[in-house]
Amino acid sequence: MKQYQHPTADQFSLTCVLHALSDPVRLNYVQCLATLTCEQPCGAIATPVAKSTMSHHLRVLREAGIIRIRTEGTHSLTSLRWDELEARFPGVFTSVLKAVDKNVLVEEE
Amino acid sequence: MKQYQHPTADQFSLTCVLHALSDPVRLNYVQCLATLTCEQPCGAIATPVAKSTMSHHLRVLREAGIIRIRTEGTHSLTSLRWDELEARFPGVFTSVLKAVDKNVLVEEE
Repeated sequence: MKQYQHPTADQFSLTCVLHALSDPVRLNYVQCLATLTCEQPCGAIATPVAKSTMSHHLRVLREAGIIRIRTEGTHSLTSLRWDELEARFPGVFTSVLKAVDKNVLVEEE
Repeated sequence: MKQYQHPTADQFSLTCVLHALSDPVRLNYVQCLATLTCEQPCGAIATPVAKSTMSHHLRVLREAGIIRIRTEGTHSLTSLRWDELEARFPGVFTSVLKAVDKNVLVEEE
């Protein structure tokens, strides 16, 4: 079973978090995850990019500490680390999600 | 006299703003500008990068709408567009500045 590495909250870097959120596809994915509130299979959220590209995006989000990925059987399940992000950088993640203008998030690739 | 182009507030893009703030040198510069509060000559804030590199960073910040640059005589003066950013993406810029951990902003290059 694949084990994913995650930074601890004290390893979060503000610039890494901002970089991870600065891509429209990643920001859209995170917003959908926030709307759904519970843990989701990685493929459950429709994205406009190829699976391999999305794997890269998920890695960037995971390594920044924005999402947690765990395996259960043959599935990879994804959840936001919202509480940890909010504790580490108060207001940043929440205000970014509030500011997301769906019209800004163009479909790419 | 060089004229700089600036996006209007309704042209600001959230992902461009996040990208502009996701670099340690740029984030450090913006934080210094916020501390100084008033308009500053572009070279007044010490940065750990070459002048040409800083010109690139200033362009990224200007094109994202984070700073305004105007020329006065032989000087270029820089100021934050904080109020416009706050109006367009409430809480984002302010919470990022509050979250800046000086220890995270390593000197680069």
